[in-house]
Amino acid sequence: MALMRGEAGPVRALGVGLIGTGFMGKCHALAYRNANAVLGGLPPIRLEFLCDVPHDKATRMAEQFGFARATDDWRALVRDDAVDIVCITTPNRMHHEMALAAIAAGKHVHCEKPLALTLAQAEEMAQAAQDAGVCTMVGYNYIHNPAFAHTQRLVEAGEIGRIVHVRGWVDEDYQADPDLPWTWRAAMAEAGLGALGDLGCHLVSMVCRLAGPIDSLIADMATVHETRPLPEGGGRQAVENEDLASALVRFASGATGVLAISRSAWGRKNRLGFEIHGTKGMIVFDQERMNELMLYRNVGDKALQGFTTILTGPEHAPFGAFVPAAGHQIGMNDLKIIEAGAFLAQIAGGPRAGPDFTEALVFERVIHAIAEAARSDARIHLA
Amino acid sequence: MALMRGEAGPVRALGVGLIGTGFMGKCHALAYRNANAVLGGLPPIRLEFLCDVPHDKATRMAEQFGFARATDDWRALVRDDAVDIVCITTPNRMHHEMALAAIAAGKHVHCEKPLALTLAQAEEMAQAAQDAGVCTMVGYNYIHNPAFAHTQRLVEAGEIGRIVHVRGWVDEDYQADPDLPWTWRAAMAEAGLGALGDLGCHLVSMVCRLAGPIDSLIADMATVHETRPLPEGGGRQAVENEDLASALVRFASGATGVLAISRSAWGRKNRLGFEIHGTKGMIVFDQERMNELMLYRNVGDKALQGFTTILTGPEHAPFGAFVPAAGHQIGMNDLKIIEAGAFLAQIAGGPRAGPDFTEALVFERVIHAIAEAARSDARIHLA
Amino acid sequence: MALMRGEAGPVRALGVGLIGTGFMGKCHALAYRNANAVLGGLPPIRLEFLCDVPHDKATRMAEQFGFARATDDWRALVRDDAVDIVCITTPNRMHHEMALAAIAAGKHVHCEKPLALTLAQAEEMAQAAQDAGVCTMVGYNYIHNPAFAHTQRLVEAGEIGRIVHVRGWVDEDYQADPDLPWTWRAAMAEAGLGALGDLGCHLVSMVCRLAGPIDSLIADMATVHETRPLPEGGGRQAVENEDLASALVRFASGATGVLAISRSAWGRKNRLGFEIHGTKGMIVFDQERMNELMLYRNVGDKALQGFTTILTGPEHAPFGAFVPAAGHQIGMNDLKIIEAGAFLAQIAGGPRAGPDFTEALVFERVIHAIAEAARSDARIHLA
Amino acid sequence: MALMRGEAGPVRALGVGLIGTGFMGKCHALAYRNANAVLGGLPPIRLEFLCDVPHDKATRMAEQFGFARATDDWRALVRDDAVDIVCITTPNRMHHEMALAAIAAGKHVHCEKPLALTLAQAEEMAQAAQDAGVCTMVGYNYIHNPAFAHTQRLVEAGEIGRIVHVRGWVDEDYQADPDLPWTWRAAMAEAGLGALGDLGCHLVSMVCRLAGPIDSLIADMATVHETRPLPEGGGRQAVENEDLASALVRFASGATGVLAISRSAWGRKNRLGFEIHGTKGMIVFDQERMNELMLYRNVGDKALQGFTTILTGPEHAPFGAFVPAAGHQIGMNDLKIIEAGAFLAQIAGGPRAGPDFTEALVFERVIHAIAEAARSDARIHLA
Repeated sequence: MALMRGEAGPVRALGVGLIGTGFMGKCHALAYRNANAVLGGLPPIRLEFLCDVPHDKATRMAEQFGFARATDDWRALVRDDAVDIVCITTPNRMHHEMALAAIAAGKHVHCEKPLALTLAQAEEMAQAAQDAGVCTMVGYNYIHNPAFAHTQRLVEAGEIGRIVHVRGWVDEDYQADPDLPWTWRAAMAEAGLGALGDLGCHLVSMVCRLAGPIDSLIADMATVHETRPLPEGGGRQAVENEDLASALVRFASGATGVLAISRSAWGRKNRLGFEIHGTKGMIVFDQERMNELMLYRNVGDKALQGFTTILTGPEHAPFGAFVPAAGHQIGMNDLKIIEAGAFLAQIAGGPRAGPDFTEALVFERVIHAIAEAARSDARIHLA
Repeated sequence: MALMRGEAGPVRALGVGLIGTGFMGKCHALAYRNANAVLGGLPPIRLEFLCDVPHDKATRMAEQFGFARATDDWRALVRDDAVDIVCITTPNRMHHEMALAAIAAGKHVHCEKPLALTLAQAEEMAQAAQDAGVCTMVGYNYIHNPAFAHTQRLVEAGEIGRIVHVRGWVDEDYQADPDLPWTWRAAMAEAGLGALGDLGCHLVSMVCRLAGPIDSLIADMATVHETRPLPEGGGRQAVENEDLASALVRFASGATGVLAISRSAWGRKNRLGFEIHGTKGMIVFDQERMNELMLYRNVGDKALQGFTTILTGPEHAPFGAFVPAAGHQIGMNDLKIIEAGAFLAQIAGGPRAGPDFTEALVFERVIHAIAEAARSDARIHLA
Repeated sequence: MALMRGEAGPVRALGVGLIGTGFMGKCHALAYRNANAVLGGLPPIRLEFLCDVPHDKATRMAEQFGFARATDDWRALVRDDAVDIVCITTPNRMHHEMALAAIAAGKHVHCEKPLALTLAQAEEMAQAAQDAGVCTMVGYNYIHNPAFAHTQRLVEAGEIGRIVHVRGWVDEDYQADPDLPWTWRAAMAEAGLGALGDLGCHLVSMVCRLAGPIDSLIADMATVHETRPLPEGGGRQAVENEDLASALVRFASGATGVLAISRSAWGRKNRLGFEIHGTKGMIVFDQERMNELMLYRNVGDKALQGFTTILTGPEHAPFGAFVPAAGHQIGMNDLKIIEAGAFLAQIAGGPRAGPDFTEALVFERVIHAIAEAARSDARIHLA
Repeated sequence: MALMRGEAGPVRALGVGLIGTGFMGKCHALAYRNANAVLGGLPPIRLEFLCDVPHDKATRMAEQFGFARATDDWRALVRDDAVDIVCITTPNRMHHEMALAAIAAGKHVHCEKPLALTLAQAEEMAQAAQDAGVCTMVGYNYIHNPAFAHTQRLVEAGEIGRIVHVRGWVDEDYQADPDLPWTWRAAMAEAGLGALGDLGCHLVSMVCRLAGPIDSLIADMATVHETRPLPEGGGRQAVENEDLASALVRFASGATGVLAISRSAWGRKNRLGFEIHGTKGMIVFDQERMNELMLYRNVGDKALQGFTTILTGPEHAPFGAFVPAAGHQIGMNDLKIIEAGAFLAQIAGGPRAGPDFTEALVFERVIHAIAEAARSDARIHLA
C-alpha cells in the first residue's frame, strides 16, 4: 500500500472514488491521475474505485482511466473504506443525495457545480459538510486558470485602483438551434435552472471572487425556444427553464455590475468573460482565449497607453508546472489538475483554495436570486 | 448663383449655416463640403454662414472651413435668407432654443444628439418640426456606417433568423480619471444626462434600428466619482449626472436585451458595439474597428463554422464612393458625409434615411426611461 | 482672386490641376479640397483645372469634385498659367511623360506611385525635378498615417532599441481569381512590374523610412496564373509580370529583413504591414487596422509584459486635426489629406515631409532590384 | 504483469523508458501516462524506467512522474529488458548516441527534435532505424494539433484550391535580451544550429506536411548578439550559431514560400504560424492561439466573405477525446498525448502518423540547407 510521508509517520495514499464518467468524469479522472506528476509535492493518491452504469461500462472506463475497481452501485463506492475522496460528476439532480451520503460516510467530497437543483438542497449540503468537518471542493474550474489568479493578484494589489464596475458574460450555443430535440436539460425537475445553473454560476464565481459579495440585484430572463420536438416524433414538449438571463447587480463594495448569460448564443462555444473597471485601469478576460489577459493601466505616456495582451506564462503560477514558457498554452483539462491539486493540498492541511460547499453556496444563491428577481420583477436583496 | 437642376427648372444651391465649430462643428463643415464630391448626384450646396463666439473666432473658422460669411449671433444666422439648412453643433443645452428658432424661420435643421436636455424639450422640438414641415436630421452618425447598413440588410433578409436577444455597450474613458477637474459635463442644467445623453443614445439608435422599439425596461445607474475638484483650487463640486448606466430591455418583438454604458471605462475610446443574437446566427460589431463586421451563421459543415470577419468594401454601399476596395477603410468623418448626403437627398425629395427629430425622440425616450427606471428602481413601460 | 498672406504681402492661392479621376484622382481631389479645412495654416488653394477623357467626363467630374475648369488635353492643363501644382493620377505608363512636361512648365508635381515603368524613366524624372528646382511629392500615402509617424518617433527615440530585423508584407487579392480576365495590369508595357510596382513599393517606403537604406538583397518571384482569358472569348493571353515576389534584404545598418508581396492572396484586401524587431522591443502594424499599433517593450514586471494595442489618437499628430479622440478613427482618404497638406507646406517653404521624386527613386530602385535578383538568382547590391 | 489483449492472446504492456526530465521529459512522461486514459483503445503501457543525473534526482522524478524504477545510467535503461520504448529528451548533442544505442538494443525510439547536431548524424540514425526495423517517432508535436490536422484535411480536399504560396514564421524571444549570459545554446558543438535547430525545424515540419517537399532555396541568417557575457564575470564569449534565419523556398509542386525564424523576437513566445495561399482561398494559423484556425474561401456572396475564425472542437478529431465542446481548449501537453498515442498505435501495427526518423530527416535536411545557403549565398538544391 502506498504511503504518504506525514509528520507523524507514514500516511496512507488517498483513495479516489469517481462517480460518473462523462465529460466531467473524465476530467476528474485525468486531474487526479496527473496532479502530483504535474504539480509535485502533493499527497499521494490511488485511483481506487469508479462507478457508472451499467456495470460493464464502469469496468471499461475504470480500465481506461486507470481505476483499480469498478461498480454500478454508487452507495457501495461512497461507503468503501479504501475511498477517501468522492468525486461526484453525475447529472445535477443526483448531487444532493450522493454528497450527503458521502459526507455521512466521512468522505471528502469533490462535487461538480451546481451543488444542487434547489437552494434549499445546496444549503443542506453545505451545512452537512460543515457539521461533519470533511473537506469539500466544487468544480468551479475556471477560477483556477493562472490568468484568473493573476487577475486576482492585480486587483488585490490595486493595479487598476478601486473596482467601480464589472461586466460579465457567459455564452454558449448548445441550445441555439430551434430544431434541437427536447432533452432532460429542459426539465426543471432534472436540470433545475437552465443557462443560470449550467453557465451562469461559473460567471458568478469569477465576478464574486474579484469584486466581492453581491448585495442586491434586478434581473430578467427568457426562454428563447418555448417548446422543442420530442425525439421520437411525438409532438413537442415545453422547455421549463431559461435559455438566457441577465442581471444588474450591486456589490457590497458599492460597485455595480452587469451579468449576461445565454445557452442560445450562436457561435459562442465557451465565451465566459469579464471586464473589471477600476479607477486606474481595466482588466478584460475571455475564456475562449484562456491563455491571454488584457490589461489597461492609466500610467505613463498617454501616447503609449493601450490594452496590453499578456500571454500567461511561468510568471503566472502554476503555469510553469505545465510548460516552462508563455505561448505554449495550457488547456481546459489542466485547470482541473490545478483544482484537484488545490483540494489535495487542502486535505493535507493546506489552506482552502477552491470554493468549498460554503463558498459555492454563496455563488449559487446569486443565480437563484437572479431567477427570483426575473420572476418577480423586483429587486432581490442577498443576505 | 449656383443652381440645382430640378424637374421644374433650375434650383438654388442650398445654403448651409453652421452654429458651433468644435469637434462636431468641424465634422459638419467637412461633411457638407464633401458630400457631393464623394457621393455625387446630390443637390448643390453653399457653405454660407458660420457662427461662433467671439466674432474673430467665427471669422477665422469660416475661412478655414470655407464658409462665405461669419457671425457671432446665431439668431442672425438662423433667420438669414441665404441659409436653408441650419446645423446645430453647440452644447446640448442650446439645441432646444436654436432648433425651435430655426424651425420657426422655416429652415431645415441638422442637429447634434441628444436633441435636448429634457424629454419635454425634445418632444416640443419634434412637434414643431412636424408642424412646420421642415426636414430634420439628428447626428446619430454611427448608423450611417456601411458596416451598420449591411447589418440591417442581413437582419432584414433573415440571415441570422429571428432576433431573440441583443447585447449592446458603449464605453469611453473621458471621465475615468478621478483627478479630472469638474466641468459643465457634470452639471445637470448644462449637460442633462451624463453617459446616457452623451453615449447611450448612440447605442439605443443602433439597437432600435436593428431590433425595433423597446417596450419596457429596468435599469441601474451610478456616479463613479461623486465629486470632482474645481479647477481653481476651490474645493470640490458634486457630479450631478451618471458616469455609468445599464438596462435590461424588452423589445416589442419579444426579444430581450442588455445595454451597458460608461464614460469611466479606462482604455475604451469609442467602444460602441453590439451583438445581435438570432435563431440562425449572430452579428457582432465594434466601432473601434468600424470597418469590420463579424458574422456567424449556422449553415453548412460544422467543422467550418466560425465567426467571419467581413471587411467592409464596395459591396457595402456607399463604401465604394470613398475607396474602391475593402481594407482601405473609411473613418469617422466619412460617416458624417454619408449623413449629410442622406439629409441633402431627403431635402431634395428623397426618402428619410437618417433619424429625424421624430425618430430621434424615440431613441431619447429610451435613455430618459433608463434614468427614470434607475431612479425609481421600477420597470418603466414605453408607450 | 484668392490671396495668401505671406510675409512679403499677399500671395496668390495655389492652383491645383488634376489629371485622372479614378480612385487616386478622386482621392487627390478630396485631399486638396480639405487640407486647409482640416489641418489649417496651409497656403490657400484653388481647384483650378481637371483633365480626363472624354471631355464630357472631365466636365462632369470637375463639377462633382469642385474644379473650376475641365479639359481632355493634359498638355493644356500642364502649361496652364493658373495651375501651380499638377497632380498625376493616370495609369503608370503615362507618369513619365506627364511629369517631365509639368516639370518643364515649372510646375510642382504630385505624382502617384510608382514614378514610372522603368528605373531609367524614374531616374530621368528625379533628375529633371532637381534641375528645375520644383517641389515634388509621390503618393506613398501610407507613410502619412499617424500610426506610422508614431512608429518612426518611437524607433528614433530608441524605445525598442537598435533595429536588428524587419519583416514586411503587403498582400491583396485582386488577382487571386484564376478566372479573372486578362487586363492591362498583366502587360509589362502597360503596367511595368506587377505586384512589386503596385504594392511592393508601398512596403519598401515604410521599411526604408524605419530601418534605413537597403544595401543588398536576394529574391524570388512568381506568376501564379501564367495566362488569363481574353475578355471576349478569344483564347488566353500571357501574364507578363509577377503575382508575387519576396526578398531577403540587408540594410546598411546591419539589420536584416524579409519582404513578401502578393496580389493573389485570397482574403487580403490591403494587408500592408510590418514587424520591427529591436533589441529592446517590437512594433507591429497592419494597415487593415490602420488606427492601431502594437508595441512590446521589455520593461518592468515580466508578469505584465505583452503587446500593447495603441489606438491612434490626438497624442499622435496630426490625428487630432481630424477627430479629437482616439477610437473615432481616420480613414484612407484622410491619409491623402495629410500628404497634400505636407506638400502644400513644403511649397510654402516648409520642410520636405513626404517622399519627393529623389526619395521615391530610392524606394523604386529596391523593387527593381528585387525583380532583377529574382530573374538572375543572384545577390543584387544597391549603390 | 499487465497484459494487452491482442488477437493472438495476451500481449505484454509496453515498457516506457524516459531519458531526461526537463521540459520535454515531463511532457513525455505526462503523454505516456495519459494517452490511453484520454484516447482509449491503445496498447497498455508501463512507466518502467527513468534516467536523469544525479541519481537522487532520477529517483525523485520517477516518483513524481510515476515511473517504477530510476537510474543515472542511460545505457542501463536502453538495454533494460522491461523497456520497449525509449524516450530521448536530453540536450540535442546526446540524441545521436542514445538513439543508436536504443536502436541497437531493438527498442522503439521516441526522440525529441532535432534528431542530431549534424545532418550526417541524423542520416545515420534514420538508416539505423530502418535497418533495425524498429518504430521511431520524432517530437514534432505541433503537427499533432487538431487544428493542423484539420488544415491538412482542408488542403487535401481542395477547399482552398491549388497551393501557390506559403508563408511561415516561428519566433520566440528567449535570446532577445542583449544582456543574457552565454549558455551552451550558443555553442555549435553543444546545440548545433541555433534558431533553425530549435525552432525552424518545427516550421519546416508544418510547411512540408502541407505543401510537400522543398526543391531548392536561397537564404540568409544572422547572429543578432555576436557575443554574450560569461556568467561569472569572465568577459564575453562568441555566439556561434544563428539568432535568426530566413529562406525563400521553391516546392517540388511549383509553389513558392517564405520562411522566417527568430529566437530574438521580443514579445513572441511561441509564434509558430503559417499562411497557405491557394487558388480558391487561404488558411492562416498561429500557435499562440492554437485552438483557432482562420479560413477564407472565395465562395458565395462577396458581401459575406471574410476570414472565418474556426474554434477547434469535436469536429476536429481527436479534440473530442479531451473535451467534448469547442471553446474549451486543449493545451501544449495535450499535443504530446496525441503524439504518444499515435506512436503507440503505430507500434501496435497501426499506420505511421507522426514523423519517424526518415521523415524527420527530410525536415532537418531543409534547415541544414538553409544554413548552407546562407553561408554560401547560393541556391541550394535538395535531392
